[in-house]
Amino acid sequence: MDIITFTSDFGEQDWFVAAVKGEILKINPRAKIIDISHTLSPFNIRAGAFLLKNVYRNFPEGTVHLAVVDPGVGSKRKPIIVFSENYYFVGPDNGIFSYIYNSKSRVYEIIFKQITSSTFHARDIFGPVSAYLSKGERIEKMGREIKRYIKFEFPKLKKIGKKIYGEVVYIDSFGNLITNIPNSLNLGSFKISQIGKKVLIKDSYSEGKKGEFIGIKGSCGYYEIALNQGSAADLLNAKIGFSITGELT
Amino acid sequence: MDIITFTSDFGEQDWFVAAVKGEILKINPRAKIIDISHTLSPFNIRAGAFLLKNVYRNFPEGTVHLAVVDPGVGSKRKPIIVFSENYYFVGPDNGIFSYIYNSKSRVYEIIFKQITSSTFHARDIFGPVSAYLSKGERIEKMGREIKRYIKFEFPKLKKIGKKIYGEVVYIDSFGNLITNIPNSLNLGSFKISQIGKKVLIKDSYSEGKKGEFIGIKGSCGYYEIALNQGSAADLLNAKIGFSITGELT
Amino acid sequence: MDIITFTSDFGEQDWFVAAVKGEILKINPRAKIIDISHTLSPFNIRAGAFLLKNVYRNFPEGTVHLAVVDPGVGSKRKPIIVFSENYYFVGPDNGIFSYIYNSKSRVYEIIFKQITSSTFHARDIFGPVSAYLSKGERIEKMGREIKRYIKFEFPKLKKIGKKIYGEVVYIDSFGNLITNIPNSLNLGSFKISQIGKKVLIKDSYSEGKKGEFIGIKGSCGYYEIALNQGSAADLLNAKIGFSITGELT
Repeated sequence: MDIITFTSDFGEQDWFVAAVKGEILKINPRAKIIDISHTLSPFNIRAGAFLLKNVYRNFPEGTVHLAVVDPGVGSKRKPIIVFSENYYFVGPDNGIFSYIYNSKSRVYEIIFKQITSSTFHARDIFGPVSAYLSKGERIEKMGREIKRYIKFEFPKLKKIGKKIYGEVVYIDSFGNLITNIPNSLNLGSFKISQIGKKVLIKDSYSEGKKGEFIGIKGSCGYYEIALNQGSAADLLNAKIGFSITGELT
Repeated sequence: MDIITFTSDFGEQDWFVAAVKGEILKINPRAKIIDISHTLSPFNIRAGAFLLKNVYRNFPEGTVHLAVVDPGVGSKRKPIIVFSENYYFVGPDNGIFSYIYNSKSRVYEIIFKQITSSTFHARDIFGPVSAYLSKGERIEKMGREIKRYIKFEFPKLKKIGKKIYGEVVYIDSFGNLITNIPNSLNLGSFKISQIGKKVLIKDSYSEGKKGEFIGIKGSCGYYEIALNQGSAADLLNAKIGFSITGELT
Repeated sequence: MDIITFTSDFGEQDWFVAAVKGEILKINPRAKIIDISHTLSPFNIRAGAFLLKNVYRNFPEGTVHLAVVDPGVGSKRKPIIVFSENYYFVGPDNGIFSYIYNSKSRVYEIIFKQITSSTFHARDIFGPVSAYLSKGERIEKMGREIKRYIKFEFPKLKKIGKKIYGEVVYIDSFGNLITNIPNSLNLGSFKISQIGKKVLIKDSYSEGKKGEFIGIKGSCGYYEIALNQGSAADLLNAKIGFSITGELT
């Protein structure tokens, strides 16, 4: 397919992202490299996992998703390739692919000789492997299948009567709080201790008054809490893990 | 032409920009997607309109300009396609295309069935429509022409004697103040109340001394006020709409 | 080759980067434009030079490296093309290419007629020249060779006994301090006055304890000083030029 997406915590100021792209283009000059994000929090693998989960299916099948959020670079964590739902994923085995794994996913440890640096695996291993996959190289030529790999569980809901106890799993750059409560549950409102009145569910962001908190069914399949024309995260001082209680209708 | 530019207020941290690009590539794998900016102020449609006005002609004719600064997503504002000067524009009818409209522009309301989300029209409507246009699909297959649409007027100048009363229409990331006074007027200086002496017009940024305010004929066709090696906006605490008085020679 | 990399201090908020890309695509619609960085400090040419030095060879030979960090735009600094090691470099003659020059590099002053703006040479000169080079146009048609150009020296080391006196040449966005001490020297530790104990050399970032300073052989060929899971630059208040003393084993 020639499409490679690229997610990292490298920031956009230095040459790291471009170095990886250049090495990819040396191997596959036809590669089409699409940035997902390079400003992930360096040590927040769960946020990276949630981000990948939300976007990988938006790309054509056959796409290679390169994702390097890798505080353990140089340690003994394995470099891996995952094949799942006709997508390829390349990166470290540290949980970054947790939310894409299913029972049919196949995971391979990368066996790759040309390691020249112990601190820049994206450039020296993950980028080149992604480039070869995008050219149609077979996984089996670059890795051997493994059965044990790191997988975080997606935070679970608790249900007591009409109350659903969930939490914030991602905060987007608008400050919207994305929860782990799926849109398929029929919520009527949220109860958040810092907010005096109930947070009502609306059909769209624009239905809230300026400065009003609203709940909406988010575009990624989970309820979000938003502050119309403002940042809900800032006003509530909410971080990932922040408790959220939904009330079924 | 296969070229699609993409302007939004989505930020670069999350997966939103990439989700739109992925859906475009599903429809047109040959699309060449060029980012213009994704860090527009979410609710500043006029700044987005000015930005588009300044860059759309730098692209080859036939380019599709996708622009989504859309605080009203989910409300009743129409999704539109504009065809003007052999360029296509796709986005919400909220004024974002105000400064590209001329008497020959044609505007179409998008009629598009597959709406799956009420909060992410860029991914579900605007991106796919842009992809089809970039493949050569006819506008008439996706929209119906309309005659009424939202258009802001570009701020007007007032002229009294040798004085031109204008205002700041855009502040760039260097802090330069871009005015609505066209380079075609022959200004000798600016008068700004917070600055004791006249701000003289120079030929280039580098002619100012460090810390000196200068006026120059800007690359986008309007006079700018700059602080050599500094941010004029910060030092003057100037926002969009800030009053500027030019003095004709 | 059709590959053009693009480095600038234009920021990512405005239309400047896209305007250059559009003009490139008008000339060479097949161009593949890869961003290196657009958030360089506007007036830090040495940091830009170090960044280029670290990444240009990661791209295939024939790549055109467009680099515009240009506080002197509009002044008398020359626009130049450099041909070195089968790469092309296009930008201002202000030292930005200092660290790629070698005895075989050839430097050409650009002779280019269509100058329409005195403040946006990237769009009006450097971008178009890069596009023509990427299409295979000969340098000699666009420039004339010159023998005098601006070249900063890379900061030199001082060696006294087992001590190596160096300095910080770049600070990356993680806050790692990149020094001018090459990996080829066999350092056992660093001595930094603000840090009580010796900073030991480790094999990778992840070997340091949280909050511990470590030295490592960096991926760009020089020793780096890092703070595990933190910013060494912030904690030491270190800028480019900060003194670093290495101790040979």
